[in-house]
Amino acid sequence: MKIIYLDHASACPLDQRVLAFGRKYLEDTFGNPSSLYSTGLEAKTAIESARQKVAGFINAEDEKSIIFTSGATESSNLAIRGTALRNMAKGQEIVASAIEHISVFNPMKELQKQGFKLTIIPVDHYGHIDLRELEKAVSPETIVTSVMYANNEIGTIQPIREISEIVHRKGIYFHVDACAAAGHIPIDVQSDGIDLLSLSSNALYGPQGVGALYIKPGVKIQTIMPGGGQERGLRSGTENIFGIAAMGEAARIAKEDMEKDRQNDLKIRDELIRGILKVEDSYLTGHPVERLPHHASFRFARIEGESILLSMDMFNIQIATGSACSSQTLEASRVLLAIGLKHEEAHGSMVITLGRQNREEEVAPTVEAVKNTVAKLRMLSPL
Amino acid sequence: MKIIYLDHASACPLDQRVLAFGRKYLEDTFGNPSSLYSTGLEAKTAIESARQKVAGFINAEDEKSIIFTSGATESSNLAIRGTALRNMAKGQEIVASAIEHISVFNPMKELQKQGFKLTIIPVDHYGHIDLRELEKAVSPETIVTSVMYANNEIGTIQPIREISEIVHRKGIYFHVDACAAAGHIPIDVQSDGIDLLSLSSNALYGPQGVGALYIKPGVKIQTIMPGGGQERGLRSGTENIFGIAAMGEAARIAKEDMEKDRQNDLKIRDELIRGILKVEDSYLTGHPVERLPHHASFRFARIEGESILLSMDMFNIQIATGSACSSQTLEASRVLLAIGLKHEEAHGSMVITLGRQNREEEVAPTVEAVKNTVAKLRMLSPL
Repeated sequence: MKIIYLDHASACPLDQRVLAFGRKYLEDTFGNPSSLYSTGLEAKTAIESARQKVAGFINAEDEKSIIFTSGATESSNLAIRGTALRNMAKGQEIVASAIEHISVFNPMKELQKQGFKLTIIPVDHYGHIDLRELEKAVSPETIVTSVMYANNEIGTIQPIREISEIVHRKGIYFHVDACAAAGHIPIDVQSDGIDLLSLSSNALYGPQGVGALYIKPGVKIQTIMPGGGQERGLRSGTENIFGIAAMGEAARIAKEDMEKDRQNDLKIRDELIRGILKVEDSYLTGHPVERLPHHASFRFARIEGESILLSMDMFNIQIATGSACSSQTLEASRVLLAIGLKHEEAHGSMVITLGRQNREEEVAPTVEAVKNTVAKLRMLSPL
Repeated sequence: MKIIYLDHASACPLDQRVLAFGRKYLEDTFGNPSSLYSTGLEAKTAIESARQKVAGFINAEDEKSIIFTSGATESSNLAIRGTALRNMAKGQEIVASAIEHISVFNPMKELQKQGFKLTIIPVDHYGHIDLRELEKAVSPETIVTSVMYANNEIGTIQPIREISEIVHRKGIYFHVDACAAAGHIPIDVQSDGIDLLSLSSNALYGPQGVGALYIKPGVKIQTIMPGGGQERGLRSGTENIFGIAAMGEAARIAKEDMEKDRQNDLKIRDELIRGILKVEDSYLTGHPVERLPHHASFRFARIEGESILLSMDMFNIQIATGSACSSQTLEASRVLLAIGLKHEEAHGSMVITLGRQNREEEVAPTVEAVKNTVAKLRMLSPL
């Protein structure tokens, strides 16, 4: 039986076009880009071409503003800890929304342990950041404010430009984790007013283990990985040529196919939402309109997310519950609590994130499996 | 004209067997290992199998002692900064040999900037660490001592067990950067007495962008990359399944083929050394016997390494000069100065590192090209 894969926020397959493009960097071009002979120069050229593609993907002013990393976690660590440590003379305050991804939240907690003041901005029940609270929280001592472009668990898209205006009025760096949003909605770091932007290759159907950080020219930042001084001294380590070249191509394709992908996603998503909300005591989480086109998230009263996931897996349908990256913990989702759900409500969540390979035919069996799952679990539930 | 590639310390091609093994993780198995459904579990299984292979490669007591990273630079950063920051209560001293790789040296310099006392242990003219100076340098306040297994620029192998005994007598962690040595000489972390060992996948003919750190059970260390808590909380970020699975297979093959590879290397290396030392005013650098089997390094009086490299490239022969990772800087090699060479002597260096694909037929054209290169450059030289 064919698997219906609906967890693209957690991991994406490598696009066959990306693999076809990147294959030569696995099979032939393996030089060290720091070497001066011809093989090294080929590797260097591949990396610079990828840099241009990623810069084009987010409309960066200059390809030099793109730094390749080992993934989104490292990108966000570099953005947050790299600016905080470099600008400590200015102050020791940092600000984040209450629904940041753990790869942003934990570097901030680490800085807090080191003495930084961390202010968490609440969100409303759709997951939109409270702009008045943000305005109050940022001070001349704040170094960096981090708000994700869109949330991976509830799909809500933030008013990035408005946030940027508030933050920039006080001369503070604005870091945006765009891992959940990139490839699904257009991102323009210049018109959005973004200083630092974290990207994941895999979320764009590129390989795992590679990511990028956009750093606006002029932003003061220091490395968190000292060594050979690659990537303008900001990210040491011999470059992952295949990974970087493939990420570049993935970004190029993601831009080119964005509208096509969006149309495919929207059709399927809206049908899924219609079908699933017919289940008794089911609710859409996140904003109904200002949400990612491939994202549908729900909660079901009186049942528990991990059981939903496992039951759906028995129907060969793969979905997520809570945050994809912390689904092995038993705590209620931080994000769902932040939008005001009670603990028992937050536990019954299901997250569907669509991808390029999903088709309308998959809607009916998915809705059917959800119905059966919820009915079965409620029968077993003590609540 | 076919290229003769003699710079394997800088970058290795991906072994076709490794690619054949890893291909399915690029093409099919792409799940997030943290997910609970079946695709996630497959990914998790692939990672755990790779962990066993890497543990077997260095005879680690337990596969849990292997942490996968984005490469050797991150491994050494984690080993050094992770132990230093975790054990600051004990003291704030760190110790390293004078010929450490820049990926070890720079994290140590970073700690020095933060207030740690860094002691550099000199080496003799073969590159062997001065054991008496080491003995004097380590104190009860020292947290970690770092000495590479063998040096990438001069090939010299350190007396790791003797160093370990000195370091452990004072209760200090012993970190070993094994990137240059791994795959070429047997490494046994238990009988060698190693607490932390950095490995690079690419040096084992695995993909770039992945590495591992061995951490002896009981060693107190903290993460330098907070986030989702992968790799026992020591290295956050969604796992690079292809990279990790392929690194595991590369380590398994490296162990299996080590003796065969060594025999091939030794034959070619000794012929190369014999041929090249016939050039007037040429010298072998590093130890003549206690050196890596695939490694031949030289210096030529009155000429300059970068010119050697570029001239050899015109003969389609790719070699290195100075450290592979800093060959774009114009400074004399730190390593060659440390073994007592004068600046002008240190500039005329050439490093050959052999690999699985090199054959005896390549010796004659290489020696010929070196002769021509040296003669031509000396004619042009003002010295």
